[in-house]
Amino acid sequence: MVTITDVARVAGVSKNTVSRYLNNRGYISEQTRNNIQKTIDLLHYQPNQIARSLYSQKTQLIGFVIPEIAHPFFSTMTSYIEDELNRRGYKMILCSTMHSEEKEKECIDLLMANKVDGMIIGSHSLDINYAGISSPVVALDRYLASSIPVVSADHVQGGMIAARAVIEHGCTNVAQFIGYSKVRSPSFERYRVFAEQMHKHGIRCVSFELGLNQFEIEPYLRIADTFLTDNQDIDGIFASDLIALAIQKRALEMGRKIPDDLFLFGYDGSYVYKFASPSLPTVIQPYAKIAEKAVDVLIRKIEGEEVDQMEYTVPVTAYRPERDQLSAQTQNGIADDTSTIFHEVALGI
Amino acid sequence: MVTITDVARVAGVSKNTVSRYLNNRGYISEQTRNNIQKTIDLLHYQPNQIARSLYSQKTQLIGFVIPEIAHPFFSTMTSYIEDELNRRGYKMILCSTMHSEEKEKECIDLLMANKVDGMIIGSHSLDINYAGISSPVVALDRYLASSIPVVSADHVQGGMIAARAVIEHGCTNVAQFIGYSKVRSPSFERYRVFAEQMHKHGIRCVSFELGLNQFEIEPYLRIADTFLTDNQDIDGIFASDLIALAIQKRALEMGRKIPDDLFLFGYDGSYVYKFASPSLPTVIQPYAKIAEKAVDVLIRKIEGEEVDQMEYTVPVTAYRPERDQLSAQTQNGIADDTSTIFHEVALGI
Repeated sequence: MVTITDVARVAGVSKNTVSRYLNNRGYISEQTRNNIQKTIDLLHYQPNQIARSLYSQKTQLIGFVIPEIAHPFFSTMTSYIEDELNRRGYKMILCSTMHSEEKEKECIDLLMANKVDGMIIGSHSLDINYAGISSPVVALDRYLASSIPVVSADHVQGGMIAARAVIEHGCTNVAQFIGYSKVRSPSFERYRVFAEQMHKHGIRCVSFELGLNQFEIEPYLRIADTFLTDNQDIDGIFASDLIALAIQKRALEMGRKIPDDLFLFGYDGSYVYKFASPSLPTVIQPYAKIAEKAVDVLIRKIEGEEVDQMEYTVPVTAYRPERDQLSAQTQNGIADDTSTIFHEVALGI
Repeated sequence: MVTITDVARVAGVSKNTVSRYLNNRGYISEQTRNNIQKTIDLLHYQPNQIARSLYSQKTQLIGFVIPEIAHPFFSTMTSYIEDELNRRGYKMILCSTMHSEEKEKECIDLLMANKVDGMIIGSHSLDINYAGISSPVVALDRYLASSIPVVSADHVQGGMIAARAVIEHGCTNVAQFIGYSKVRSPSFERYRVFAEQMHKHGIRCVSFELGLNQFEIEPYLRIADTFLTDNQDIDGIFASDLIALAIQKRALEMGRKIPDDLFLFGYDGSYVYKFASPSLPTVIQPYAKIAEKAVDVLIRKIEGEEVDQMEYTVPVTAYRPERDQLSAQTQNGIADDTSTIFHEVALGI
């Protein structure tokens, strides 16, 4: 049987290039394309058969390792990654490590035992040697090892967007909440840029690190209580959506006016911010595009391509209630649009 | 090699009973326990070895099929089910069908091809023959086939809790939002009980069916707009948390007082309701216990036990902001408790 190696040899290109041609991916010159197609015709090469025989050594399973599936950032991301994997013919094995290093190690071992073709890892334990994982790995918003490519939202841009909003609003004394600093993540760029911008504009800025290792709303609400009681002079806050929402809830209950007394700007944009009243302005991470990029890089690694670029950042957008289409649309209440999505029924009682 | 069948034969009990003894599960009389242990000692039977050889025919993979991972009900449920499966030595393959029948069929086929030991299914497509799935299946809050056991929250109790709250609050003209009626689910008992209680107490009650087949917040907000504009005389609403929160947001924006002008009672209790201001009273589904029961029934089926009981309901609880500990606790703002979970840091700028 003619193999992809034969096609590559006869066409005088690498196996990698033939694979990229067959998968219609990446730049290949017109001339090389023609050359490969002619070779395929000449040798009566049947890509699908070969693909299948290549695949027969594979499980088509991808491990997705995250700290917490219940957190809206990760559940939304899981949804997009699962969808993207499906589109590319892969199934996901989900591992939620509950922030436990031991559980994460077990997860990775079990994924290896189940012979996954690759892993996308969005958690980070300090004592795990990620570089030692024998199957291809892509990291999600975490620096795991110098050999593992990282895909993340553009945190620099996110920090800039929030800083500009806080400055425009006229805040003079702001706080930001930052993630657990022992986890090495591109997100630290966001905190740095934000603090830098505050400094540059002569705005006082205090940074608070969260030492939480579990996603539970009650601690967020307690943090909000303590923070608001101890920092009554703060007039602007930049924090991930859940922290921002917890602070907003408590501030409202304490009788403070949002955004007049306290201007909140979120980061994440999963869906939770959409329920807030008043609406929470926030940085929206490009979930679909992050998922697409992470899966794409992983599949390229699985197919044996050299992946040189080690950092991929995807542009973010902003939700500004006073400006956005989303808000304008939903605040108009388009009556004729809802008849199809809800209607009165008789329950026969 | 001595097998579990030999132990069963010599002990004069079923293989099932020996398996239950080895897994320390279900009631077995003291006498039978002693009898089995004596036989094991006598035959020098080594359970672990056998377990391993039994397991070698298994993948230890369980398929979890749900309509939408991003929805907080399903992401929270996934978290608990994954945890419970892990505890029992299984890994989860997650399939999010995005409410597509075609995708659900593909999922089930792919899970079969990956030789999962069993499936937990929380979605429901009308044209899928669930009874024809050859591996053990447990349904989550859905009637899939008469041969498939169903695990769900106690919807009757949930409907009663909400009805009692609405009556106590003094509502006279209420509405409830019910799920897509073509999906056969134990949840319909909740709507029926609620409407019945309203009728019994002479309270007008209108039921609205949601025809949504995607989890998107914008349509919920549009429904809220239309509903509130067209039904200004409604003074009480029973709906799942996300719908209730969308209505609360819009009602607040329209200047209505919650709960004085409009009393809202939710159903789900994942975590989203905790951010609402004012707090949303709701029925809390027992996620951990549902997960435990679903996994337990599935593993019993996988291990070949006869499962006679076809419906399992787990009691719900209620969150009443004016009464609950949770609220009292968090509203006091326990300052000395937060020092460990957040602290000021210098970013060196």
